[in-house]
Amino acid sequence: MKKTWIKTNCGILCAASAVGRTEKKGPLGDHFDMHSEDDRFGQRTWEKAEAEMQRIALNTALAKGNMDDGALGAIFAGDLLNQCVGAAYGLKDFNVPYFGLYGACSTAAEGLILAAMTVSGGYFDRAAAIASSHNCTAERQYRSPLEYGAQRAPTAQWTVTGAGAFVVGEAERSMALIRSVMPGKVKEKGIRDAANMGAAMAPATAETLLRFFDESGTEPHDFDLIATGDLGYEGGDILCDLMRIEGVDIRSVYNDCGMMIYSRDTQDTHAGGSGCGCSAAVLASYLLPKLARGELKRILLIGTGAMMSPQSIQQGEYIPAIAHLVELTAKEEGSEWRSY
Amino acid sequence: MKKTWIKTNCGILCAASAVGRTEKKGPLGDHFDMHSEDDRFGQRTWEKAEAEMQRIALNTALAKGNMDDGALGAIFAGDLLNQCVGAAYGLKDFNVPYFGLYGACSTAAEGLILAAMTVSGGYFDRAAAIASSHNCTAERQYRSPLEYGAQRAPTAQWTVTGAGAFVVGEAERSMALIRSVMPGKVKEKGIRDAANMGAAMAPATAETLLRFFDESGTEPHDFDLIATGDLGYEGGDILCDLMRIEGVDIRSVYNDCGMMIYSRDTQDTHAGGSGCGCSAAVLASYLLPKLARGELKRILLIGTGAMMSPQSIQQGEYIPAIAHLVELTAKEEGSEWRSY
Repeated sequence: MKKTWIKTNCGILCAASAVGRTEKKGPLGDHFDMHSEDDRFGQRTWEKAEAEMQRIALNTALAKGNMDDGALGAIFAGDLLNQCVGAAYGLKDFNVPYFGLYGACSTAAEGLILAAMTVSGGYFDRAAAIASSHNCTAERQYRSPLEYGAQRAPTAQWTVTGAGAFVVGEAERSMALIRSVMPGKVKEKGIRDAANMGAAMAPATAETLLRFFDESGTEPHDFDLIATGDLGYEGGDILCDLMRIEGVDIRSVYNDCGMMIYSRDTQDTHAGGSGCGCSAAVLASYLLPKLARGELKRILLIGTGAMMSPQSIQQGEYIPAIAHLVELTAKEEGSEWRSY
Repeated sequence: MKKTWIKTNCGILCAASAVGRTEKKGPLGDHFDMHSEDDRFGQRTWEKAEAEMQRIALNTALAKGNMDDGALGAIFAGDLLNQCVGAAYGLKDFNVPYFGLYGACSTAAEGLILAAMTVSGGYFDRAAAIASSHNCTAERQYRSPLEYGAQRAPTAQWTVTGAGAFVVGEAERSMALIRSVMPGKVKEKGIRDAANMGAAMAPATAETLLRFFDESGTEPHDFDLIATGDLGYEGGDILCDLMRIEGVDIRSVYNDCGMMIYSRDTQDTHAGGSGCGCSAAVLASYLLPKLARGELKRILLIGTGAMMSPQSIQQGEYIPAIAHLVELTAKEEGSEWRSY
């Protein structure tokens, strides 16, 4: 079998997030860089609000790194909206070569993989990855406008209003290192319930994780944290079960960005958070700082995407899914990682 | 200004196309590999037909190159459909790491750029780029279902039913070389007429072309052909004018995949063809074989994308556009290209 695991030599220099009101009220609320109390970010449509979140997230990340868009060789960005207008409109004023991505909720990881590969390959000194989602744009696009008050299924996830931006560059100056990446393969295992995306995405996630452990020679306990983004409670359980069946127990180091971002006790989001913005914001503002401070040493972030459209669901099609993996480590002198 | 022009060292090993009935009847009809007389490719929905075209195009390309999906390190693919379901569904049975792209009609060029960079960078031995569009899926998604018989504006382009697939790999065995690439930047110049995408895309195209000539030190007459995909008649005229204003005359070597694919005399497609599948199919089955036979020596293919959504148009937003450039040359021993 062809090797699909790719070692990289770069890091994340700086990152930032912008989120909505519900996310601000959640357990990670204090960590996010910016929020909008009415989820509008000063814009007159929800779509413009989402685009504005992307702009704010990238601008803030650049500001934190004390650089401007002239430092970037490329932008890799996307979102959940039809034709990815959140990214295209939000980032149009950055004078930087732009690669539009569509990976559903895996977009932040997909962007980080391509940024890490092109930076490590010497094509760009620095490249940015940005992803976003907005509850109000996603709900009316994928399900029904919020005003309808449609009832949600217990397995349904709550689309996060948020954006995360990352600047990938030289390892020396970075907050955390991108040690390796593994792009996902499209997997479809017969799930056609759009209110249970976790179930659709779990098999693709298991495939990527098993492939990663196999090719890298690592094991779950080599990592402080294996974080998916975003399987939610339903999909996370299925993933742990699928892995256990294969003889790999990840439960003790497993978490999910969609489980971290909301409180299950005080915020009823059913199966947890989802949306490109979820893992992007959680990584940018919660996990990366923990790596930078050394509180986490070595983690796997697995962006998971369900790549159906409302139309493909109406037509009765199954949901294809994908899971892109990024290995991140703290930048410590003399760290002794398990050798590959 | 930061350099954005990227030299690559690889080529296109094989390529294939699948098109619909109207394209088959056009002036390039004999060149395409496969076609479906009823545009359905044996499927029960137009969306499935588009996905099937992607599958057929990649399968045919692999067959031409005498390889299977095990030869591919990655797939870079996309289409015009919401959530890019043409690519995700059509390519799900290839057991290959998958990067979903959204670049509107620039997708084939965007995929070729990323394939060329990752292959040249040593990450993959071979990688595929695939893009598609379907007249019946695009019309009902972006404008109105064909059954409504809505009248089209004279500046409107006709969405091509077609897909093109390319396998990028080692220069030695290739049909044509990918000598360099230049990713586009998002540009928006105040056009909000979705029936005139050529006008929206022309400024982004001029920006990329001028940047390419500037950074590479080349001139229009260094190339046999500068082909956009797809500005159509309206946008092509605007591009030539925008370039002339900047003192660069491209008209004598300029053509557009959307102008090539249909006959203006016998097929009334108004402003010419468009859609991700247009430049993908024309490059795969018409331009690449000409490069392989040495009838063309050195060309620029510029994929041009208008990145609005139906919703962003309804909301009165301007149309952001992008233009990704790929430089292709014939593979001739001892060729003397203008030195960079």
